[in-house]
Amino acid sequence: MRPSGRAFNELRAVSFDVGVAKHAEGSCLVKFGDTHVLCTASWDETTPPWLRGAGRGWVTAEYGMLPRSTGDRMRREAKNGQSGRTQEIQRLIGRSLRAVVDLKALGERQILIDCDVIQADGGTRTASITGAWIAMNEAFKWAVSQGVIKSSPVIDRVAAISCGLIGGAPALDLDYDEDSTAQADANFVITGTGGLVEVQATAEGDPFTDEQFQALLALAKAGCADLSARQAELA
Amino acid sequence: MRPSGRAFNELRAVSFDVGVAKHAEGSCLVKFGDTHVLCTASWDETTPPWLRGAGRGWVTAEYGMLPRSTGDRMRREAKNGQSGRTQEIQRLIGRSLRAVVDLKALGERQILIDCDVIQADGGTRTASITGAWIAMNEAFKWAVSQGVIKSSPVIDRVAAISCGLIGGAPALDLDYDEDSTAQADANFVITGTGGLVEVQATAEGDPFTDEQFQALLALAKAGCADLSARQAELA
Amino acid sequence: MRPSGRAFNELRAVSFDVGVAKHAEGSCLVKFGDTHVLCTASWDETTPPWLRGAGRGWVTAEYGMLPRSTGDRMRREAKNGQSGRTQEIQRLIGRSLRAVVDLKALGERQILIDCDVIQADGGTRTASITGAWIAMNEAFKWAVSQGVIKSSPVIDRVAAISCGLIGGAPALDLDYDEDSTAQADANFVITGTGGLVEVQATAEGDPFTDEQFQALLALAKAGCADLSARQAELA
Amino acid sequence: MRPSGRAFNELRAVSFDVGVAKHAEGSCLVKFGDTHVLCTASWDETTPPWLRGAGRGWVTAEYGMLPRSTGDRMRREAKNGQSGRTQEIQRLIGRSLRAVVDLKALGERQILIDCDVIQADGGTRTASITGAWIAMNEAFKWAVSQGVIKSSPVIDRVAAISCGLIGGAPALDLDYDEDSTAQADANFVITGTGGLVEVQATAEGDPFTDEQFQALLALAKAGCADLSARQAELA
Amino acid sequence: MRPSGRAFNELRAVSFDVGVAKHAEGSCLVKFGDTHVLCTASWDETTPPWLRGAGRGWVTAEYGMLPRSTGDRMRREAKNGQSGRTQEIQRLIGRSLRAVVDLKALGERQILIDCDVIQADGGTRTASITGAWIAMNEAFKWAVSQGVIKSSPVIDRVAAISCGLIGGAPALDLDYDEDSTAQADANFVITGTGGLVEVQATAEGDPFTDEQFQALLALAKAGCADLSARQAELA
Amino acid sequence: MRPSGRAFNELRAVSFDVGVAKHAEGSCLVKFGDTHVLCTASWDETTPPWLRGAGRGWVTAEYGMLPRSTGDRMRREAKNGQSGRTQEIQRLIGRSLRAVVDLKALGERQILIDCDVIQADGGTRTASITGAWIAMNEAFKWAVSQGVIKSSPVIDRVAAISCGLIGGAPALDLDYDEDSTAQADANFVITGTGGLVEVQATAEGDPFTDEQFQALLALAKAGCADLSARQAELA
Repeated sequence: MRPSGRAFNELRAVSFDVGVAKHAEGSCLVKFGDTHVLCTASWDETTPPWLRGAGRGWVTAEYGMLPRSTGDRMRREAKNGQSGRTQEIQRLIGRSLRAVVDLKALGERQILIDCDVIQADGGTRTASITGAWIAMNEAFKWAVSQGVIKSSPVIDRVAAISCGLIGGAPALDLDYDEDSTAQADANFVITGTGGLVEVQATAEGDPFTDEQFQALLALAKAGCADLSARQAELA
Repeated sequence: MRPSGRAFNELRAVSFDVGVAKHAEGSCLVKFGDTHVLCTASWDETTPPWLRGAGRGWVTAEYGMLPRSTGDRMRREAKNGQSGRTQEIQRLIGRSLRAVVDLKALGERQILIDCDVIQADGGTRTASITGAWIAMNEAFKWAVSQGVIKSSPVIDRVAAISCGLIGGAPALDLDYDEDSTAQADANFVITGTGGLVEVQATAEGDPFTDEQFQALLALAKAGCADLSARQAELA
Repeated sequence: MRPSGRAFNELRAVSFDVGVAKHAEGSCLVKFGDTHVLCTASWDETTPPWLRGAGRGWVTAEYGMLPRSTGDRMRREAKNGQSGRTQEIQRLIGRSLRAVVDLKALGERQILIDCDVIQADGGTRTASITGAWIAMNEAFKWAVSQGVIKSSPVIDRVAAISCGLIGGAPALDLDYDEDSTAQADANFVITGTGGLVEVQATAEGDPFTDEQFQALLALAKAGCADLSARQAELA
Repeated sequence: MRPSGRAFNELRAVSFDVGVAKHAEGSCLVKFGDTHVLCTASWDETTPPWLRGAGRGWVTAEYGMLPRSTGDRMRREAKNGQSGRTQEIQRLIGRSLRAVVDLKALGERQILIDCDVIQADGGTRTASITGAWIAMNEAFKWAVSQGVIKSSPVIDRVAAISCGLIGGAPALDLDYDEDSTAQADANFVITGTGGLVEVQATAEGDPFTDEQFQALLALAKAGCADLSARQAELA
Repeated sequence: MRPSGRAFNELRAVSFDVGVAKHAEGSCLVKFGDTHVLCTASWDETTPPWLRGAGRGWVTAEYGMLPRSTGDRMRREAKNGQSGRTQEIQRLIGRSLRAVVDLKALGERQILIDCDVIQADGGTRTASITGAWIAMNEAFKWAVSQGVIKSSPVIDRVAAISCGLIGGAPALDLDYDEDSTAQADANFVITGTGGLVEVQATAEGDPFTDEQFQALLALAKAGCADLSARQAELA
Repeated sequence: MRPSGRAFNELRAVSFDVGVAKHAEGSCLVKFGDTHVLCTASWDETTPPWLRGAGRGWVTAEYGMLPRSTGDRMRREAKNGQSGRTQEIQRLIGRSLRAVVDLKALGERQILIDCDVIQADGGTRTASITGAWIAMNEAFKWAVSQGVIKSSPVIDRVAAISCGLIGGAPALDLDYDEDSTAQADANFVITGTGGLVEVQATAEGDPFTDEQFQALLALAKAGCADLSARQAELA
């Protein structure tokens, strides 16, 4: 039995509220249990300076947490600058989305994704990626409907989930309490067709074995397939 | 007729969702029409260094806007630092709340208020102050219920509203479109018993007359009385 | 009787030394009692990037205090960055001056105002605005004399004064000691023809009443009229 | 045939120069082909503030690249701040080393690792981890010889290697040219006894399959075993 | 004939206004021709952290230029941070003053010198040092008169002057126009008894000969002796 | 007898390893005893923005120390920003090299010098200048060989050495221990033909006499002549 009472291969309650942000071209409030992330997609008819004239577009992301999204209040990054953790996560989100977009078909434009954690309970980066794909997809639907682009440059869906070893046992979609005591912490980003985009596993304390790692990977494949199916319903 | 179709002395639809943030000691999602601000109050058993040993407490506030809370995406302050406008607003929120708290009765503790604009449509600072009072009051109720303090140090309620001159005519609670074309822009912070905490009026373009200013003040008094009555229902 | 021994409606000794800065296109050393501010106006044949091609000019201001202009030495902002208070004041100075300049008539140029407090004894922002108008006006006179512009784009004069409640009584032009104990602190920016440009009143501690506020406003009108008359002599 | 002419499972020429830094308690100049990293270990009889009194020690790392260690000169981070990539790498190095040290046995002290890239040709993070272990181990040997600690708190060795898909084929220890064209980029951190400390694999462009990922993992296990054997000779 | 019309060994008109700053323990407005620097000395009953418990005091200095002290307006360092030049000058001022103070006799206290350039016309660092000595000496006189210390810890006077090669000819105390065209630029800091505290000479363009350098040194000795005599009159 | 056992006019063992950096257009690892500095020269076909269109080139330098190049570990400047000392040194290196390059003959290009201290034992700035000249000269030789420029714009060689007073006696090329106890600290930059580029002498504690200063200058002339001869062998 894991601390949350869930089965070891069970996701938390997942929901997607699409179109919640009045101003954004695409938006989604994603919830993985008590982890709530507002994802918006902003359409930008320019590309970053280093990509000018390259004949292709870009997708980039920024990530933040509200100071009291967490149990103990965090220092506001607007006053202290972005932490290494924040930068690592936002680079991961951007990379994950770019893996499923045909950047040449997009043309010289970019999509700016903002993932802001309204409430945190573990798994904020995986919820962000999963919700960001929906926000991005909404923005592409908007652009097609407006005649800005003829067809969506999206190639595939992409979702992400965390796994970890709790008392040596592999478990899916850890909440904050579970994550705090896990021996290993892993995040997987997997496409709708099962392609691997990102595999990250880190020992917290003792190293883990190959067998343990393979079990985490198997859990993640099933979890991402489940999330991807829900994305498909909204796409 | 004003652009929003409202009467010149009419507030937008106002709502307060209390207790929306799982982790915070007090919280309120305040809506003034399409302006939505999440206000949280964090209890802190220490005071700022410059107040150590002074025998009284403190209330301070931080303010931020999500990058895509606005029509055009703003630059993220975590990457660029807080603007002068942000600093001005967060100082105003803290000052407004301190005016209605008995800091000696609070003792050597502080309340940290976070006002984060989820969606913006004008009046974010006045919605923030009005909602922050509720979040703060919730935190005091929590502390009394927990036995941390014997009774609440709150002396009065405090609310805030904006006014402006639209085509020369005084109007209450401007939305973004109205604010963009207003000749004068004013913000008033008024207590439940009618005391003035803050009066700010700024000419945008031509100066305004004393008569115009007095009309704005009269509108604000009525508007804050209305907001204060709604706060009282939740207190 | 107020601490300074002045009548409640009495300004401190005011003086303006025009042309004190050898290099600047316009300059004025303004003294409100022991508050001394050096104001310079620099002519710039460009406008800020966001105003390029807009067919109009700009007036902007920066403000600073020498570290030992005050009773206790302040930290040097060049080492620590500008405080929120500094940014708030310099935005106020710029806004006040722009209210009395025809920016279209100025053309695509800007005036950069620097207000540097050489010695501080309360009222530095109001002395700055009052002196900055003179420095700016000198720069326009210089530009006309040089044939850079045909006529001055100045529409009106503008002056500023502080007021406050001392022991409940309204008083004009507070010095530092008076300001430190005042119950309310107000600043007014008023044009030569009596138009209101900025009204700011803040409770320090207890809120103030409408009657008290109206008394402060009346004092400020008389004070600014006096300052404006002195500006007219130098214009 | 891969671009470098090496076999797909072949490491570059690897060397370790131990004790090259006169002042450091431990040091190692590690070379993976043309990638040269100077690793030093500094002994510190204090722990970070957040660990004071916790009864255990810490190992942390910083990473940097000389501006002209690369083909095109990089901007100096001392002038521009650390990039997200730099922060990500130095956190990885510290985490990898802590996985093989008994922090309680170390006591309230810390080891500060510096990995500075003198010359870069791909794989700087894996060379850094591998060399840093040697520098750290030297520092522990020094401390034992000086009587500072009775026995070394090192539990295991740790080494790291990169892998990638070149033209779809898995290859070990990519140099810069190979890395620039690889479809997937992976880094593995593995202990002397075969425990996994960190698994990271990222698609560059198209996602990769599970089969491809497993091939990369197999290559890395062999590569790290080889590096670990060389570390053992020097331990 | 040099551009300024002065003899090659002639100082500009020099004046010292002592006690100009109401709040400071010591102050001096020093003028070297059109270069005007306000120097203040602030008494501080603490020492820097790294000197706590060392049984001796410290003298340190900060330097700044008002943005429009110069012909072209400079960027304000409060917005942009201190330049390398500013840091170099303020370190030189502090070092020069410490050379003539018995820091043990001062005890665990420090003097904070602020040199702010009100108007610049070359030689701001040498005017700063020369005026700062007077401000510091005033602060010591104040401290003795207040009974804070029994006797002044000043050992000697110190003054500074610039020299340069104009058309190959050595000249004393260069103004801005002269400095801009000089082939070599030198600054000398010399005590009242003729001791050398700092010698700095820099080629601008072509190197200079030993003979030229010796001529600059001779000019500086005479110039500093003259300045030192004037300091003595005010001491 | 001086602490190092060397004669008072004796340099430390000096060596130059030319071409050590694979990627740089010119490079030199210079050693003055245990002081080791890696100097690289990077060719840049652009000039700084303020020099565009001026018809001449530029030489600039950056300087850094590895954190554990010193006896006690220094804080990494990438995390803390460049110190005033670092900025002072890198400006000195750039100025020294520009004195011996015909910038018009170079054309609109710049050479970026990086001097990174691998190990420090006193005299890092003088070793940097001396080694940087060689790295720069190598880059010019490379550019001539590649046909980028027809002939080298180098006019002269330039070398630098430190001197100081040890127990009142003038000594050449101080190491760290000697420098720590020296009464005066001087650095001289002298060309191959004996021209003076930079003279800097600073009292540490008591001022020094003219006689002492002249003795330091004489030592430096001989020392730089020796270094210059060694540079000539490699040119």
